[in-house]
Amino acid sequence: MVDIIEYTPTRDEYAYTFGGVAPVMRIRPGTALRLWSEDAFNFALRSTSDLSSEKVDLRFVNPQTGPFYVEGAEPGDTLAIHIVDLEPARDFGASAAIPFFGGLTSTGATAMLQEALPDTTWIYHLDRARNTVTFDGRFGDFSVDLPVEPMLGTVGVAPAAGEVRTSLVPERFGGNMDSPEVKAGATIYLGVNVEGALFSLGDGHYRQGEGEACGTAVEGAMNSTVIVDLIKGQAPAWPRFESDTHWMAVGSTRPLEDSWRVGNVEMVMWLQDLFGLHAMDAYQLLSQTSIVPIANVVDANYSVVVKVPKALLPAASAYDGIHADLRARAAGLI
Amino acid sequence: MVDIIEYTPTRDEYAYTFGGVAPVMRIRPGTALRLWSEDAFNFALRSTSDLSSEKVDLRFVNPQTGPFYVEGAEPGDTLAIHIVDLEPARDFGASAAIPFFGGLTSTGATAMLQEALPDTTWIYHLDRARNTVTFDGRFGDFSVDLPVEPMLGTVGVAPAAGEVRTSLVPERFGGNMDSPEVKAGATIYLGVNVEGALFSLGDGHYRQGEGEACGTAVEGAMNSTVIVDLIKGQAPAWPRFESDTHWMAVGSTRPLEDSWRVGNVEMVMWLQDLFGLHAMDAYQLLSQTSIVPIANVVDANYSVVVKVPKALLPAASAYDGIHADLRARAAGLI
Amino acid sequence: MVDIIEYTPTRDEYAYTFGGVAPVMRIRPGTALRLWSEDAFNFALRSTSDLSSEKVDLRFVNPQTGPFYVEGAEPGDTLAIHIVDLEPARDFGASAAIPFFGGLTSTGATAMLQEALPDTTWIYHLDRARNTVTFDGRFGDFSVDLPVEPMLGTVGVAPAAGEVRTSLVPERFGGNMDSPEVKAGATIYLGVNVEGALFSLGDGHYRQGEGEACGTAVEGAMNSTVIVDLIKGQAPAWPRFESDTHWMAVGSTRPLEDSWRVGNVEMVMWLQDLFGLHAMDAYQLLSQTSIVPIANVVDANYSVVVKVPKALLPAASAYDGIHADLRARAAGLI
Amino acid sequence: MVDIIEYTPTRDEYAYTFGGVAPVMRIRPGTALRLWSEDAFNFALRSTSDLSSEKVDLRFVNPQTGPFYVEGAEPGDTLAIHIVDLEPARDFGASAAIPFFGGLTSTGATAMLQEALPDTTWIYHLDRARNTVTFDGRFGDFSVDLPVEPMLGTVGVAPAAGEVRTSLVPERFGGNMDSPEVKAGATIYLGVNVEGALFSLGDGHYRQGEGEACGTAVEGAMNSTVIVDLIKGQAPAWPRFESDTHWMAVGSTRPLEDSWRVGNVEMVMWLQDLFGLHAMDAYQLLSQTSIVPIANVVDANYSVVVKVPKALLPAASAYDGIHADLRARAAGLI
Repeated sequence: MVDIIEYTPTRDEYAYTFGGVAPVMRIRPGTALRLWSEDAFNFALRSTSDLSSEKVDLRFVNPQTGPFYVEGAEPGDTLAIHIVDLEPARDFGASAAIPFFGGLTSTGATAMLQEALPDTTWIYHLDRARNTVTFDGRFGDFSVDLPVEPMLGTVGVAPAAGEVRTSLVPERFGGNMDSPEVKAGATIYLGVNVEGALFSLGDGHYRQGEGEACGTAVEGAMNSTVIVDLIKGQAPAWPRFESDTHWMAVGSTRPLEDSWRVGNVEMVMWLQDLFGLHAMDAYQLLSQTSIVPIANVVDANYSVVVKVPKALLPAASAYDGIHADLRARAAGLI
Repeated sequence: MVDIIEYTPTRDEYAYTFGGVAPVMRIRPGTALRLWSEDAFNFALRSTSDLSSEKVDLRFVNPQTGPFYVEGAEPGDTLAIHIVDLEPARDFGASAAIPFFGGLTSTGATAMLQEALPDTTWIYHLDRARNTVTFDGRFGDFSVDLPVEPMLGTVGVAPAAGEVRTSLVPERFGGNMDSPEVKAGATIYLGVNVEGALFSLGDGHYRQGEGEACGTAVEGAMNSTVIVDLIKGQAPAWPRFESDTHWMAVGSTRPLEDSWRVGNVEMVMWLQDLFGLHAMDAYQLLSQTSIVPIANVVDANYSVVVKVPKALLPAASAYDGIHADLRARAAGLI
Repeated sequence: MVDIIEYTPTRDEYAYTFGGVAPVMRIRPGTALRLWSEDAFNFALRSTSDLSSEKVDLRFVNPQTGPFYVEGAEPGDTLAIHIVDLEPARDFGASAAIPFFGGLTSTGATAMLQEALPDTTWIYHLDRARNTVTFDGRFGDFSVDLPVEPMLGTVGVAPAAGEVRTSLVPERFGGNMDSPEVKAGATIYLGVNVEGALFSLGDGHYRQGEGEACGTAVEGAMNSTVIVDLIKGQAPAWPRFESDTHWMAVGSTRPLEDSWRVGNVEMVMWLQDLFGLHAMDAYQLLSQTSIVPIANVVDANYSVVVKVPKALLPAASAYDGIHADLRARAAGLI
Repeated sequence: MVDIIEYTPTRDEYAYTFGGVAPVMRIRPGTALRLWSEDAFNFALRSTSDLSSEKVDLRFVNPQTGPFYVEGAEPGDTLAIHIVDLEPARDFGASAAIPFFGGLTSTGATAMLQEALPDTTWIYHLDRARNTVTFDGRFGDFSVDLPVEPMLGTVGVAPAAGEVRTSLVPERFGGNMDSPEVKAGATIYLGVNVEGALFSLGDGHYRQGEGEACGTAVEGAMNSTVIVDLIKGQAPAWPRFESDTHWMAVGSTRPLEDSWRVGNVEMVMWLQDLFGLHAMDAYQLLSQTSIVPIANVVDANYSVVVKVPKALLPAASAYDGIHADLRARAAGLI
């Protein structure tokens, strides 16, 4: 039985960057954490009459819970964050078409002269018994219940090279990848860039489509149970995920084809390691087996996940089988 | 019971373009076709010692079976191509890392000064009993059996505006989308641009990962059974697919984020039609429900598929329920 | 003294594609042509009350004068088109912000959900004595005279691989590059793809900024005097230009960085040929000497011109000095 | 007569980031500075046998001189940095094809599986009398003298939102734009994001082609004379430059077309302000007058400069004519 450290930040403990923030706590590798995180809008959208242009302060979005200083973590090491459980911490989530933010609108970077889309907020009520959130149309009376599928938009460590990035950015350090794969049962591997790694998480989503087209998911406060462990050395160049069913690598840059290239190259390297393959054979094998969902096309960088189904390949073990071990430890927690 | 027209082109009947080719046959809407198609390499790679740089003539790749003139098809109409069955027509497939072609190499468009990757051919033997193809490493002795999951890389009609495009191009007219969704059970909707539509197909894949990373799938000759039907008017701007489980739209352009945008906008429009939604509500609903696999990042345009699971939404019917009808007709064929 | 063939197409002789059109005339290499071309809008915009959404038929824009069959031209040869003189053929030019067309608006490929910008037409009156066109604001009374700097938006040959592309497309075959470098004094080198090359030109601009931001220049009918010559073999992979002052190469694809890469790789190859350089030395030399204006970011492909000033480098001669020779022949024409 | 503060940092005073570094000095608005800056390689490449893979520590490149705390500068203000004079501080510059860095090679973001280009260093000797640097081929005996045209690769302030970015990054805060327009006579306008602005500069180039194709210019230590002044409020969204001849705006993001869009939108806004134009008229006027050189396609973001020649437009004055005033003050310095 593992002890769980529970932590709910006060409002002034929220972090809005990866890097550049003092740790809220020091933890030992192997620690289980139960963390409360505020929603991406910083709880500014509570009804459909709360408009993002009026209520959301873009300097204070994606509040992070953390960072945590992981004892013994040094640059070049690998942090393994196992998602044990994600549980909605409120009875509703919110989504919004923020003016000039999102995938089907011009933005500050894809700059155009057109008028903004109508600033619109949707509120999704949560039915815990049925495990659904309800979409209610704002421009008509269409409603539909959708299954809750909790995930975390952000999980990351401090960046390399002394950089500090806002919690809107996905990059090599993880961050705002907005991938539905960051859900219960997944292990996230991130290269450590600074002493203590300085891990944080937040941006809970009660559900999200791949791509996060309008720029925001069903955003909600979240209780996240995670185990944070440390692998000495072996830092991947870009985030890797492992689940019971898939090997995964995530690329986050621009344009989107470069994100895809990054994720594929990282996965070629992982397949080489896992199966002792030559790069060309790994490239070929990947080409015939990959599942490649888009994660986001709306953040400061765009994210693509390259997945290989374990069932298609021989049994293999990464990082000395830490994922299976974490799964076992997680089972003991619940 | 529907009659099936069987057609195997002679070598000099292959088409290498969408548009610009006289039809091989006139068919009535509703016709079932059983079509043999040559593999993408034009059968030039039969062993691992056949190198693409020596054997493959890039002017004669992706040979198409067709085009077929569909009687009554006029610009603005919608061609519905239902894939009844895809069956490998040879006992092996081939894949290759063609120099300066593929996703993890510089190419003619993503031009760089580096040397090409080693020109390599892989041969996959088909085991019909087990329904597998075998990957055999070329640089080591790793082997693994992979399930056969037949799909068509190309299905298209003649382009608009008098254009003629090679069978390597995916665009509004369909073409070389290289999406694993083009498999048995799917209905492909394409806008008609010219009298008779001039539909063709080819580029059979015994299996392919999403993205087709190295540029080629497990390429093989294919026997394709399809029903070709006609919907008057209602041409979608970009290809739409329908299966028993998903509504889908495909964008094919560059960069990859533009392909994604195109697919999403097309799906917003389709959701508006299917459920009587305002564009903003459709945008929001899509954002929380979409499944977005990459199809290819290696062709003349890159392709992204935007899918919405039917199970998440109320029952709806597109084009007067033609997909269900085609499924029923297909059942009568087998 | 060279004879000049004058040719003004009738309205039904206009071509709207590169490739796919029968030649209007056969010419011998070395022929001088004086060609009239209609404006890009097909003369649909004659006053500010002519709106592009109402008057312009997008199937019939960028009408080409030609194509011309150049005797002896074979695939692999190089067509040299020397621009002797460009003279506005009307007393006004037109420009327009066509809905969902241009660089600072969403488009069919960069698809978004926003409303179109206001459909607006500007008419520029030409003052031949002062050699100016006048910009008159449509939303205020600002006016300014701008120098006439005539150029051709399109000059191209039939594409390779049996393709036919609309006259809105720039690619390896030249086409709608929309580069201000295509002006009097320049020689355009294009690889020949089909017997007779099938050269055409059009899309005259009385002036244009680099990038053609709003999608249209000061569009006007043009009288173009050109000499068309043939170099056996030596086809460049992408268009090259030569002026008295610069070596130039043009890349046209998407995204824009790929256009830039293509133009740079082509220029590395040209510098290697011109000066007997190793690729790495050519790459370095180019890096310190290039002038790189954007040509267009609004067409079916985006175009970048990579220029190297002749004055910075030793004297050199391309294609046996044909540019200097054409300059001399041109001088004899005027 | 203005006093000039001279400052040469010690090696441990170099800054490697924008933001995140304590100021080296506080200065009053209007101060003239004469600053020495180390070269981009941190003086690691002194002969052609110094290879970047062996000698260059990528954590310590583009060392910045600064940052300077400008008294009274507050978020929302505009810093005006006038480049009075740039003078090479050594008798040679260096350039290198760093493995997997540059424009015509795969990189960490445009990731591929190909081998790196040969790691190569070029040394350019400076002839002060003739004001030239000499290119000497490394793979042949080609040599050519090129004019010295000094510029600064980096000039920037601390970023917004608490971010810290390496000195390899160009963004809204300026930074590593690598634009040849940052030369003597230019005024650089940057929005202030933090108290004191925290301005720094470095990355001197003795000359550079547009695009900086190989990733590095003729890099050399530089003596820069600048006047730093402050405009209350009026912060531009993206960097603006002004010279005696041009209005300019710079976009730095990815893909390159987005950089172009950003620069164009910023210039539309500036033209609106300068001439009282409606956005659509400014868009049109810009479309016919812009000069658009690429600055870099090799850094963490790509940069495009959108220029409008002052000679084409009526006389106008930005920021109360501060550029003319700075020119006058600069004249008094020399």
